[in-house]
Amino acid sequence: MLNDSLYPKSFASDNHAGVHQAILDAISAANVGDAPAYGGDAATAVFESQIRTEFGDAAEGFAVLNGAGANMVGLALMLGRYDAIICADTAHIATHEAGAAEQLLGVKLVTVPTADGKLTPEDITARLGGLGNPHESQPKVVSISQVTELGTCYSPDEIAALAEAAHEAGLFLHVDGARLANAAAHLGCSLRAITTDAGVDVFSLGGTKNGALAAEAVVVLEPSLSRGVPFLRRQSLQLASKMRFVSAQLSALLTDELWRANAAHANAMATRLAAGVTGLTGVDLAYPVESNAVFAALPEKATRALQERYLFHVWDEQAGVVRWMTAFNTTPEQVDDFVRDIRSALTA
Amino acid sequence: MLNDSLYPKSFASDNHAGVHQAILDAISAANVGDAPAYGGDAATAVFESQIRTEFGDAAEGFAVLNGAGANMVGLALMLGRYDAIICADTAHIATHEAGAAEQLLGVKLVTVPTADGKLTPEDITARLGGLGNPHESQPKVVSISQVTELGTCYSPDEIAALAEAAHEAGLFLHVDGARLANAAAHLGCSLRAITTDAGVDVFSLGGTKNGALAAEAVVVLEPSLSRGVPFLRRQSLQLASKMRFVSAQLSALLTDELWRANAAHANAMATRLAAGVTGLTGVDLAYPVESNAVFAALPEKATRALQERYLFHVWDEQAGVVRWMTAFNTTPEQVDDFVRDIRSALTA
Amino acid sequence: MLNDSLYPKSFASDNHAGVHQAILDAISAANVGDAPAYGGDAATAVFESQIRTEFGDAAEGFAVLNGAGANMVGLALMLGRYDAIICADTAHIATHEAGAAEQLLGVKLVTVPTADGKLTPEDITARLGGLGNPHESQPKVVSISQVTELGTCYSPDEIAALAEAAHEAGLFLHVDGARLANAAAHLGCSLRAITTDAGVDVFSLGGTKNGALAAEAVVVLEPSLSRGVPFLRRQSLQLASKMRFVSAQLSALLTDELWRANAAHANAMATRLAAGVTGLTGVDLAYPVESNAVFAALPEKATRALQERYLFHVWDEQAGVVRWMTAFNTTPEQVDDFVRDIRSALTA
Amino acid sequence: MLNDSLYPKSFASDNHAGVHQAILDAISAANVGDAPAYGGDAATAVFESQIRTEFGDAAEGFAVLNGAGANMVGLALMLGRYDAIICADTAHIATHEAGAAEQLLGVKLVTVPTADGKLTPEDITARLGGLGNPHESQPKVVSISQVTELGTCYSPDEIAALAEAAHEAGLFLHVDGARLANAAAHLGCSLRAITTDAGVDVFSLGGTKNGALAAEAVVVLEPSLSRGVPFLRRQSLQLASKMRFVSAQLSALLTDELWRANAAHANAMATRLAAGVTGLTGVDLAYPVESNAVFAALPEKATRALQERYLFHVWDEQAGVVRWMTAFNTTPEQVDDFVRDIRSALTA
Repeated sequence: MLNDSLYPKSFASDNHAGVHQAILDAISAANVGDAPAYGGDAATAVFESQIRTEFGDAAEGFAVLNGAGANMVGLALMLGRYDAIICADTAHIATHEAGAAEQLLGVKLVTVPTADGKLTPEDITARLGGLGNPHESQPKVVSISQVTELGTCYSPDEIAALAEAAHEAGLFLHVDGARLANAAAHLGCSLRAITTDAGVDVFSLGGTKNGALAAEAVVVLEPSLSRGVPFLRRQSLQLASKMRFVSAQLSALLTDELWRANAAHANAMATRLAAGVTGLTGVDLAYPVESNAVFAALPEKATRALQERYLFHVWDEQAGVVRWMTAFNTTPEQVDDFVRDIRSALTA
Repeated sequence: MLNDSLYPKSFASDNHAGVHQAILDAISAANVGDAPAYGGDAATAVFESQIRTEFGDAAEGFAVLNGAGANMVGLALMLGRYDAIICADTAHIATHEAGAAEQLLGVKLVTVPTADGKLTPEDITARLGGLGNPHESQPKVVSISQVTELGTCYSPDEIAALAEAAHEAGLFLHVDGARLANAAAHLGCSLRAITTDAGVDVFSLGGTKNGALAAEAVVVLEPSLSRGVPFLRRQSLQLASKMRFVSAQLSALLTDELWRANAAHANAMATRLAAGVTGLTGVDLAYPVESNAVFAALPEKATRALQERYLFHVWDEQAGVVRWMTAFNTTPEQVDDFVRDIRSALTA
Repeated sequence: MLNDSLYPKSFASDNHAGVHQAILDAISAANVGDAPAYGGDAATAVFESQIRTEFGDAAEGFAVLNGAGANMVGLALMLGRYDAIICADTAHIATHEAGAAEQLLGVKLVTVPTADGKLTPEDITARLGGLGNPHESQPKVVSISQVTELGTCYSPDEIAALAEAAHEAGLFLHVDGARLANAAAHLGCSLRAITTDAGVDVFSLGGTKNGALAAEAVVVLEPSLSRGVPFLRRQSLQLASKMRFVSAQLSALLTDELWRANAAHANAMATRLAAGVTGLTGVDLAYPVESNAVFAALPEKATRALQERYLFHVWDEQAGVVRWMTAFNTTPEQVDDFVRDIRSALTA
Repeated sequence: MLNDSLYPKSFASDNHAGVHQAILDAISAANVGDAPAYGGDAATAVFESQIRTEFGDAAEGFAVLNGAGANMVGLALMLGRYDAIICADTAHIATHEAGAAEQLLGVKLVTVPTADGKLTPEDITARLGGLGNPHESQPKVVSISQVTELGTCYSPDEIAALAEAAHEAGLFLHVDGARLANAAAHLGCSLRAITTDAGVDVFSLGGTKNGALAAEAVVVLEPSLSRGVPFLRRQSLQLASKMRFVSAQLSALLTDELWRANAAHANAMATRLAAGVTGLTGVDLAYPVESNAVFAALPEKATRALQERYLFHVWDEQAGVVRWMTAFNTTPEQVDDFVRDIRSALTA
């Protein structure tokens, strides 16, 4: 157990941030009287309507409890018993969801090495050789992460090209959008531009890392796929009984683009941090900073010194690369203090 | 979608109640600064310590997101690929968790017809004939619900007898304690008396129906079983990233026996409701009222009239039995109004 | 381990019989030179063509390795993650396949008590109440056994009525035909009359109990379902590499109605046995003898005496019912000897 | 469908060979009278005893129906819900079992790139970083193939080193021994030297590629693991009802080292083939020939010409590498004819 109070500021994860006040207020506001459970309430109806507004009339949103849950429910819609998912070898579903894809979905992950966490259309077509061969798992879904696990973003055109490659081969395109808001904020576009308009079939819409307490959504854009969600959500342990409180969180994020404000702020803090360490001797940024993550190669000694005072993850022990993340609640002062302490650690 | 405002009071489920103010306050209180994710925070440490206080030093508590999740994670600890669960045919895991036991655990449910939702030691021993036979699923866990799905309670002695029968045959005893608080309140005993002291191995500790927003726990009393929980909880999509807010809810319930106050009140309201309808022509209580549920046979015409103004479930269409549930937020006035309206519906 | 030589004749199972000589000859005949593996051989092409001849041009046959395998592959074609199978509570898939349905298919078995092992259309419609309810497993397949596990047969009309009831509700009809040959022999009809012509969607065609070494088939009659078989058969461990030897067995059974000769003989031996014990004091036939099984209530003392010299199963310990099975290789003399010994055991 | 008769000799797979006459004779010899099903017969007792003789008193052998079945049953013994298997990226379980590992076992395959299909102890230790991390699948089994999918063999010392590395980390060592006989024949050692004596925990013992009709075995050397086999074998659809005929096949192979004669012959034919093409312009052997497989880089034009008359697989389209396999029934004349035709194809 870590003593929270020892760490004035965590740069480990946007999950270390608390809850945005507007979200807490929305939860309180929903706490009036009785309401039908499991989604038959007024707050959920509002959320579902907001999803249609944001992503188009055919879009159906289903609130769930966490990010892995959103991914598993969404993927389950598209995958049969002998199917496979093509994804980057850094994909969260491949590395950090405790084997849920294999255990819960029962499918193979065909993992692709990438330079920057991003798949290309060629990565897809190169992995379709086994289609039709009964001895091999059958690729059926391409799953990408937007923002990727390396903090990079796909442009709308890049996603559209992936969708085209996937659809041509009879595959679906899925997006793990745990940080979709950060991508849209970075790209300066709507959420719709990188989902509906780009040909995505199903995606996870992240709320928790964006300031919610615990709220994500599965959004289905391909209408033929949505029928199974209520059953799969329930069976996958992702159906909240007091749903109104989950829907209210998502609604608050979707109201007046709170999602963008939170994401843009987090991104700006990462940019500030990256700028602060750029040029420091011993620090090398590992990937372009296109969201709220900064990956940097750092001398091990400096890393160790910093970890005595700050929480953050060593991403690649071998290469000495660390990951620093910012969140909606990160302040410029916290970033500046951190930069100062990094500078000290490097020169000590 | 149901229009919440049409129904002044729901008697459909304790899930229709909102969140107790003390829980909301605890969530707000936990929203200070950054904190490690996934349970490495101070609020979770407090919760874990409270579990040891409440259930004994060997007890380990793991916060999860919902009731089906608590059941599946807890059961997964004890079940191999060819095992089976013996449970009442009314058990929630058998009837209302969308086949999660079969799909996620991959095990057979050996369901037992009962008069009142309660298993007996004889029910267990009568279903062990296939032990050792490779053609049959192997019973490995007895799972009971406390409170049962029919609103009845097991006494501490009844649970101890089941534990003994299970253990003698090499089986574990699991309790779905979504309403464990209501049972302890009804029995006038500690939570420990019907779990640790009765020989239970693993149980689900319900929070949501007891006034929380979304918070349950898997509690492991048999120490050899706890090692797998962190992995299974993560894989089963039941690990909250911002865990402090789940732990804080459970902590609040475990502080100064808020759980008991909430449960006792809900129980009292059910008792008041049962008393109010007892003796009315056309109403027959179907089961003893030992918690916050009232099951009553009612003329179909009256049921239909009442459902125009109140939310509640028809439990058994054939027998005309309805289920009325109360919650921590049910008021005596609401009960009395409902009794009055029942009386009217019967005489209309 | 049982010493085979202790038992001159087993009445325990048609699995205790050896291999019909024509099957062994067919295996030998197929053992010429090299042949493509996994079904790309000439013998398999012959088998597949015989299936179309027997069951209609739309029928597709897929050879597999054993009966549970045929059931699981066939059922997997029709079942999604949250689906359920309606079947008799005596169904082999429910009682004696070691929980394969739950573990491999991940679905719930909705088991129906029956008088004689046979489902009725009413049994189906009475179990559809949960359709559309996300908290409940969704019935998607009705699975019947022909011959049933109690030795009884469905008439063509009875199957057609079940198919109609299933299809009307959007369900498929599956037949576990481990002893389909015995049914057709008893009914005096073609195999097609109780499958294709009766509206069956998918069925298991038994070979092993009918005189093969190890050979069964999944036959798909509903064309939209067959696409997945090659993949599911491989993944379910049911694809023989040297497939020609499995196909050759099935081919031999399908040639000149060897299947019928074998089954009719086995049935006749059961009828002879039933006739032999009818009227004996202390013996009561438990079910109509409509195939190669005789179920009889017997005094426990007689059962024990007989089991010292013969292999057979006690079917229902409580009721004192035993099961005697005959096979293609049972001789009239063996039956008569057995009847004589039963008589002695009863009077001893 | 391929027309068998078009191809005088297949070099595609040892699965294209038929059944060794001694195996067919053993099947016939077992076809006497009735025998208990599912392994309670005398032939199975003999087989089980031979396994103890061959692999040591603690060894337990369980006959199954095919190679993927042997692997899945054996692996299932050692793997829990959140575990992972470390294996070469060429491993049959990873590439050609239709995703059975993911679907049936529900575990992640951590695949390791190798030069020659062989894992090293360093490959294991480098993949244990996630042990204890609840977000990651937990490596629990190292699975190697002997012979590997590239036709290479592990020496007894190499296996012992892998066993030591695995055991030190709390992992088990599993061997996919579909061609274990070919390895022992190549190494000139006993089967025991590369299993029991090398520290293997569980392995698949191949029979089919070694001349059987359809017979493999799971052999358990670590006694704590064997308890579950009967249940898992049944549930995994790998239990033959007329078991005596499977056991008889394995027994025949284990009698007077028929396994070695068959494997040595097949190996010799591969060596002859390799020798025949060595030095031919345009042919490059891709891997050392240590069993019954020859991998060779060949000009695409020659490959295409040869495939008009011979069955064999292109292993690596990109690199132009083909795989030629020999079997117990390959004759020197067939090899010499093939070499002659290869020469012609190269010079055409």
